[in-house]
Amino acid sequence: MTSISSPLTDDAQKIVGSALQDALVDLLDLSLVGKQAHWTLVGKQFRSIHLQLDEVVDAAREYSDTVAERAAAVGFPPDGSARAISQGSGVPQLSGGWQRDADVVAHFVTALKSVIERMRERISVTDEPDPVSQDLFIQITAVLEKQYWMFQAEQA
Amino acid sequence: MTSISSPLTDDAQKIVGSALQDALVDLLDLSLVGKQAHWTLVGKQFRSIHLQLDEVVDAAREYSDTVAERAAAVGFPPDGSARAISQGSGVPQLSGGWQRDADVVAHFVTALKSVIERMRERISVTDEPDPVSQDLFIQITAVLEKQYWMFQAEQA
Amino acid sequence: MTSISSPLTDDAQKIVGSALQDALVDLLDLSLVGKQAHWTLVGKQFRSIHLQLDEVVDAAREYSDTVAERAAAVGFPPDGSARAISQGSGVPQLSGGWQRDADVVAHFVTALKSVIERMRERISVTDEPDPVSQDLFIQITAVLEKQYWMFQAEQA
Amino acid sequence: MTSISSPLTDDAQKIVGSALQDALVDLLDLSLVGKQAHWTLVGKQFRSIHLQLDEVVDAAREYSDTVAERAAAVGFPPDGSARAISQGSGVPQLSGGWQRDADVVAHFVTALKSVIERMRERISVTDEPDPVSQDLFIQITAVLEKQYWMFQAEQA
Amino acid sequence: MTSISSPLTDDAQKIVGSALQDALVDLLDLSLVGKQAHWTLVGKQFRSIHLQLDEVVDAAREYSDTVAERAAAVGFPPDGSARAISQGSGVPQLSGGWQRDADVVAHFVTALKSVIERMRERISVTDEPDPVSQDLFIQITAVLEKQYWMFQAEQA
Amino acid sequence: MTSISSPLTDDAQKIVGSALQDALVDLLDLSLVGKQAHWTLVGKQFRSIHLQLDEVVDAAREYSDTVAERAAAVGFPPDGSARAISQGSGVPQLSGGWQRDADVVAHFVTALKSVIERMRERISVTDEPDPVSQDLFIQITAVLEKQYWMFQAEQA
Amino acid sequence: MTSISSPLTDDAQKIVGSALQDALVDLLDLSLVGKQAHWTLVGKQFRSIHLQLDEVVDAAREYSDTVAERAAAVGFPPDGSARAISQGSGVPQLSGGWQRDADVVAHFVTALKSVIERMRERISVTDEPDPVSQDLFIQITAVLEKQYWMFQAEQA
Amino acid sequence: MTSISSPLTDDAQKIVGSALQDALVDLLDLSLVGKQAHWTLVGKQFRSIHLQLDEVVDAAREYSDTVAERAAAVGFPPDGSARAISQGSGVPQLSGGWQRDADVVAHFVTALKSVIERMRERISVTDEPDPVSQDLFIQITAVLEKQYWMFQAEQA
Amino acid sequence: MTSISSPLTDDAQKIVGSALQDALVDLLDLSLVGKQAHWTLVGKQFRSIHLQLDEVVDAAREYSDTVAERAAAVGFPPDGSARAISQGSGVPQLSGGWQRDADVVAHFVTALKSVIERMRERISVTDEPDPVSQDLFIQITAVLEKQYWMFQAEQA
Amino acid sequence: MTSISSPLTDDAQKIVGSALQDALVDLLDLSLVGKQAHWTLVGKQFRSIHLQLDEVVDAAREYSDTVAERAAAVGFPPDGSARAISQGSGVPQLSGGWQRDADVVAHFVTALKSVIERMRERISVTDEPDPVSQDLFIQITAVLEKQYWMFQAEQA
Amino acid sequence: MTSISSPLTDDAQKIVGSALQDALVDLLDLSLVGKQAHWTLVGKQFRSIHLQLDEVVDAAREYSDTVAERAAAVGFPPDGSARAISQGSGVPQLSGGWQRDADVVAHFVTALKSVIERMRERISVTDEPDPVSQDLFIQITAVLEKQYWMFQAEQA
Amino acid sequence: MTSISSPLTDDAQKIVGSALQDALVDLLDLSLVGKQAHWTLVGKQFRSIHLQLDEVVDAAREYSDTVAERAAAVGFPPDGSARAISQGSGVPQLSGGWQRDADVVAHFVTALKSVIERMRERISVTDEPDPVSQDLFIQITAVLEKQYWMFQAEQA
Repeated sequence: MTSISSPLTDDAQKIVGSALQDALVDLLDLSLVGKQAHWTLVGKQFRSIHLQLDEVVDAAREYSDTVAERAAAVGFPPDGSARAISQGSGVPQLSGGWQRDADVVAHFVTALKSVIERMRERISVTDEPDPVSQDLFIQITAVLEKQYWMFQAEQA
Repeated sequence: MTSISSPLTDDAQKIVGSALQDALVDLLDLSLVGKQAHWTLVGKQFRSIHLQLDEVVDAAREYSDTVAERAAAVGFPPDGSARAISQGSGVPQLSGGWQRDADVVAHFVTALKSVIERMRERISVTDEPDPVSQDLFIQITAVLEKQYWMFQAEQA
Repeated sequence: MTSISSPLTDDAQKIVGSALQDALVDLLDLSLVGKQAHWTLVGKQFRSIHLQLDEVVDAAREYSDTVAERAAAVGFPPDGSARAISQGSGVPQLSGGWQRDADVVAHFVTALKSVIERMRERISVTDEPDPVSQDLFIQITAVLEKQYWMFQAEQA
Repeated sequence: MTSISSPLTDDAQKIVGSALQDALVDLLDLSLVGKQAHWTLVGKQFRSIHLQLDEVVDAAREYSDTVAERAAAVGFPPDGSARAISQGSGVPQLSGGWQRDADVVAHFVTALKSVIERMRERISVTDEPDPVSQDLFIQITAVLEKQYWMFQAEQA
Repeated sequence: MTSISSPLTDDAQKIVGSALQDALVDLLDLSLVGKQAHWTLVGKQFRSIHLQLDEVVDAAREYSDTVAERAAAVGFPPDGSARAISQGSGVPQLSGGWQRDADVVAHFVTALKSVIERMRERISVTDEPDPVSQDLFIQITAVLEKQYWMFQAEQA
Repeated sequence: MTSISSPLTDDAQKIVGSALQDALVDLLDLSLVGKQAHWTLVGKQFRSIHLQLDEVVDAAREYSDTVAERAAAVGFPPDGSARAISQGSGVPQLSGGWQRDADVVAHFVTALKSVIERMRERISVTDEPDPVSQDLFIQITAVLEKQYWMFQAEQA
Repeated sequence: MTSISSPLTDDAQKIVGSALQDALVDLLDLSLVGKQAHWTLVGKQFRSIHLQLDEVVDAAREYSDTVAERAAAVGFPPDGSARAISQGSGVPQLSGGWQRDADVVAHFVTALKSVIERMRERISVTDEPDPVSQDLFIQITAVLEKQYWMFQAEQA
Repeated sequence: MTSISSPLTDDAQKIVGSALQDALVDLLDLSLVGKQAHWTLVGKQFRSIHLQLDEVVDAAREYSDTVAERAAAVGFPPDGSARAISQGSGVPQLSGGWQRDADVVAHFVTALKSVIERMRERISVTDEPDPVSQDLFIQITAVLEKQYWMFQAEQA
Repeated sequence: MTSISSPLTDDAQKIVGSALQDALVDLLDLSLVGKQAHWTLVGKQFRSIHLQLDEVVDAAREYSDTVAERAAAVGFPPDGSARAISQGSGVPQLSGGWQRDADVVAHFVTALKSVIERMRERISVTDEPDPVSQDLFIQITAVLEKQYWMFQAEQA
Repeated sequence: MTSISSPLTDDAQKIVGSALQDALVDLLDLSLVGKQAHWTLVGKQFRSIHLQLDEVVDAAREYSDTVAERAAAVGFPPDGSARAISQGSGVPQLSGGWQRDADVVAHFVTALKSVIERMRERISVTDEPDPVSQDLFIQITAVLEKQYWMFQAEQA
Repeated sequence: MTSISSPLTDDAQKIVGSALQDALVDLLDLSLVGKQAHWTLVGKQFRSIHLQLDEVVDAAREYSDTVAERAAAVGFPPDGSARAISQGSGVPQLSGGWQRDADVVAHFVTALKSVIERMRERISVTDEPDPVSQDLFIQITAVLEKQYWMFQAEQA
Repeated sequence: MTSISSPLTDDAQKIVGSALQDALVDLLDLSLVGKQAHWTLVGKQFRSIHLQLDEVVDAAREYSDTVAERAAAVGFPPDGSARAISQGSGVPQLSGGWQRDADVVAHFVTALKSVIERMRERISVTDEPDPVSQDLFIQITAVLEKQYWMFQAEQA
């Protein structure tokens, strides 16, 4: 069967591929939940949060692409299907219908906190087997933690 | 509970909101499956199909946003969560792992055909209740049918 | 006396020219009222609404130009003078002086609602005599209804 | 023999494919005649008309591409050869040599009038079988009628 | 009632606010009359004047915004409604229907002359109370006098 | 009858005007055949060849304009009508219907070879009477020979 | 010791150099305080004020550069060191730690008011000795007073 | 004979027209001398001074255009011919042949000093009759004095 | 004394340097006369010719720079001073005051004709000693002859 | 009292926050000293060093913003006031008045050396508690060491 | 003799300088071999691989510049001469003449694999002495491994 | 064995292919030596020469690509490997280590002189067999001779 050779050892590839796959699912779901809130938001802060959510979505989409291509580059075929997202994502889901602005801000403080915790574990776990993937997780964490601060600031 | 007033009558809103919601789910899933193939593709046509799939994804993402915001504009809160996609999408799914180029081309011929059929039904069903939403479905169909021709041409 | 030949029959031209003239007056007045609110707005939401109003103004100005040139193209000389606007516009007027943000949001929900209703009638009335002008009214309605949703969302 | 599957029924495809093929030939010839006048024009209005003709040519070229690709998308292989244009175009031809500016303006008033008439017939005939192609003809007619008005205005 | 503090003394604010309000009405009307002529113009110079009028309109719109925001900055809520324009503008109005090019050029020579005269008075009257607003009137006058020369040159 | 003075002697103008007229017809037909293949192409190389053909068309259109304006500049009114192209072009024609990718590549190797041969003769024949036109033919030949190599390389 | 010749007399240079030096210190400190608030802001208006503060900072930085280069141009070596700012600035300082949005808005209303007062004095004092520097102070005042209005409007 | 009406009185127009004409000649000559030095410069500072001279030339060309169009706007036909420059310019001339870098820097310190002196007189003389032209001379002086400082700094 | 080594023999350098110097003077004067007409033009064609003259000026300025730098590159220090232009230019001069549009067009037909004749002699004379400079003269001639045609066409 | 939750432990936050605060002060002061030298520089290398200093300032400003926002993201409110810079910066200060180019180069070699040493310590100290902040210090060090080399090279 | 001070200790500089020098030679040779294949490629995949190779070349050139400037920044004068590349590069060489597409793909899979292995060793060896250079090697490796995956995918 | 058909005769192809191959090697080596000097340069002129060398490198890289593709277009597979450069280049090599600015300027005066001499021979030798390749050599010589003048000017 076809496969892509990895620049990593088998053991390293297993750890790194798994970390990348999990990060992919988190980021894709963050982009879906971000868009969902972008569309259903109501309240006085509508315009500010509506625009800020698109920054989250843009970053999540761009990094999901980089993460999935990094998985391919270490010889691991990534899975970004709706089914994989539904089953594997750690991102908390919005209830249906219209969402109040304060609730959305609170939801994203929580959601970002949980994604950041998992992303920081991926930084730890890839330090030894693959500093290249680790560097990517570090960049993603920087961006997520900046958003985490800004949603907290909105909430204050 | 909060709600957005619709410029449509209640009956019209029901038909149009439902058509937009279904289109949203199709387009979001098309973007996910498109990216999945973009990442896992192998074969001599890799570079051509890899790039073409990103055009499909870009169009699907842009129109999913327009469709969802149109739903909001007719007073219907759209649902673009991973769960809604998993349950509601009519887009055929890829098997896991690496995908051969010819298989991907064949898959997208089939996938586009099925999305186009549903999109044309949405053109019919919204003609009476909302020519504004109908016009959007017409634009989307034009773009999808162009891609449908090009994947068929690649396959020939 | 000079005149521009119309691609429409005389009856069609009368209906379509009148619809375009009325739409022109609505759009020009929407741009004037939009700017008026942009300048006199006060309140915590100042910056968000100040910027959003300029989007309304930009759209209204751009479409007023397209509508007026469409009128010329069907052989009907449009009238966009201040007098024509004062007399013909259906857009509710702001009171003088500084405007509170919540009042402005409420004012634009009302104003957009009324312009949308008339624009939808223009879609109906031009369906038979001129699908080209109808298509323009459909585009304008899509943009106005998006703004209508967003001002409602701010208000929620 | 190779063929591209159509999203239309056979009957619809026949009507729509034929309308697109005829529109293609009109638009390509409009671009050729437009360039011919652009090069051979003389008179006091030279610079204004020289530049305006390039706008006609740019629009005609862009829409000829869209129309031909739409034909392919409905499974109809378009024919844009010089022979097809010579035989099928309804665009009146310029005499040879240098052209006076007033004559060119008059020529394009006539030429646009005839192309517009045929394009409006295509809007009618495709309404039922394919609203997607119809929408394209509506867009093209809007652009041609704007040019028709402007050449008439120059002539006045 | 809400108000914006002025960096000017009350007396200065009265003079300056009034000058800005009058300038606003002149500029907004110049933009409306400019567009009106842009749409209804006919004659051999159509294209040149059609384009030049849009430069007048663009300048008038841009400066009307600067002038109105300057009024707000000196604590004076500006009034740019259609009613205020109809009642307060000193810009001569076009008759209805299609306009011959030579007539439009002559009309704008006259219109610009009258706006310039009033703008130069505003330069005088604001010299003492507010050199900041005066500087804005100087910039606007420079632009209007350039257009005044060019319309005269067309007319020569 | 009107005419444009030539910077060339009568004899030189005859030779150069004729060479430019023939080049114009070749380039316009190359653009038509290029677009024809762009639209009707099928096969695994579809996307690569589809895009490459547009580069040929863009170059052919741009140089046809330069060549025709150069003809005008030497006092020779060029003829770029469909009839002139049909009668005068040396570019081999495609058969109707869908075209296989390998056939298109082979067709353009042949077509470019024949256009290049005639263009090189134009370089020779204009060397003495007009080095300015010769320089233009040299530039065109460089571009065509680059395309000739690349289509051969695709074919290899 | 090295020096730059001034286009001004010694007396004029003394007055103008001193006014420019003081303006430099005000503008640099405004940029530092603006960034400080940009980083430490919290509250519902976070995003709007966060972005608006960067407009203040951008303007303050750009004009501080123009002012300092103007000082050099009149032969006066400007001093923009942290020590000079600490000792010479008239801009009120923020307390440490996180800042509530309403407090920041109030702080900038006060800060802009005080800078504007000093800038208007510089307009007066340079009128006679150097209309070139005066013109720069007029431009800066226009920008600061626009921000002063907008922060007041947010506060209303 | 044809003429352009001036917004100024006859007396004012005489003073202002003359000041603009003299400024035009100075600026055009500054651009010619600047280019001359740009081409003939030699020495270790070649690249720095070569590039800086083009900034002087760009500014001089841009302002010569603004000044001449301002002259037209006040009804005074400007004269920017080589003869007018030769006879009227106050800009010191370079000797022929190659120019050492230090000599060029010294030359431009002298040249700018003399142009600035005359430009400052024009600011004085136009203060009363035309603040619009005065404002233009103020802008030009600001730019020239910045260059004057920088050439002095190079020389230090 | 300083000098730049030439890649040409002494004899070649003498011929080529002289041709470049003469071309420089022609092009600089063409730019001055072009701007002079741009400013003083009156008549119905004002806007068209006003804009076209700036294309002549832009081309003349750009090529004067290339020609002068080419002179430097062959070791010949060029002279582009006002005095050199007054004495050496073959470009016919405009009379003073306002210029009618038809006269300006006629003037530029004559002026371009004379510059083209001299430029073509420079093509001949540099063929042997320096094909690099010859190629530059060929490019310049192409541009001038295009303008020559277009001014003739305006005049027709 | 308001606060922002940190993704770091308390101990880690203390170390990292302190390192970021110190880096902020260094970078802001580097930007102030860089501008100070940019304005007061004299000598033959004026233009080269003047431009290079703006690259240092641009980088220092951009990274000061990133560093301060990183501090906020780890829950530490940064202090970038003039007072904090005066008291905390390790950047050596320029003496007052005009600065010779060689002295400025030497000053920046020394200044960069000292900032780099402290920045490298911050890389060490944050390795354990926060690889995200460490990565930022690594990027900053790369940019500063490039400038350090280039100022040394100028000095050589 | 001249030298640049290093921010590293002598031991660290030796290790890091040597790693950077070796990486420089690898990257420069990768750019040369990439261009060689870009020019001599033949086969059905010509256009895809031709374009992809230019992405490899662009990345290799950009990083060779960054690597060499980093070497300078650590006080080590890099050697990027043809002789150094010939002697030191580990990149496998192409045979002469035309290259089949499949062979080129295979060649680059091998070439990238070998460069990646050495680049990963440089990541290891610089971890201790210089995390700044290490970070650069990590970035380069990420880009090379992405290309390695894509060439493998083409080959599959 | 595969080959590309040449538009040239066999004899012409031999001469032209050989000239292009030699030019390729010269240009690639000029780019390598240019970068080498760009990195290792020291001295007061560092910044000016550092930037100028990148202009040489950019031109050399761009023309090496055009030359190599021209070789392919005449059916000659070019060789741009490090080995071919080492063996075939006529560009003088730099010694190792840091380079003083004056030495680099002198080195490039010498290097450009030698490349120009060979390039002028290629102009002669290709005049008869291929005016298209000759025209390319003429363009390259123009660029190199401009750089030759500028390095001489720096040296003066």
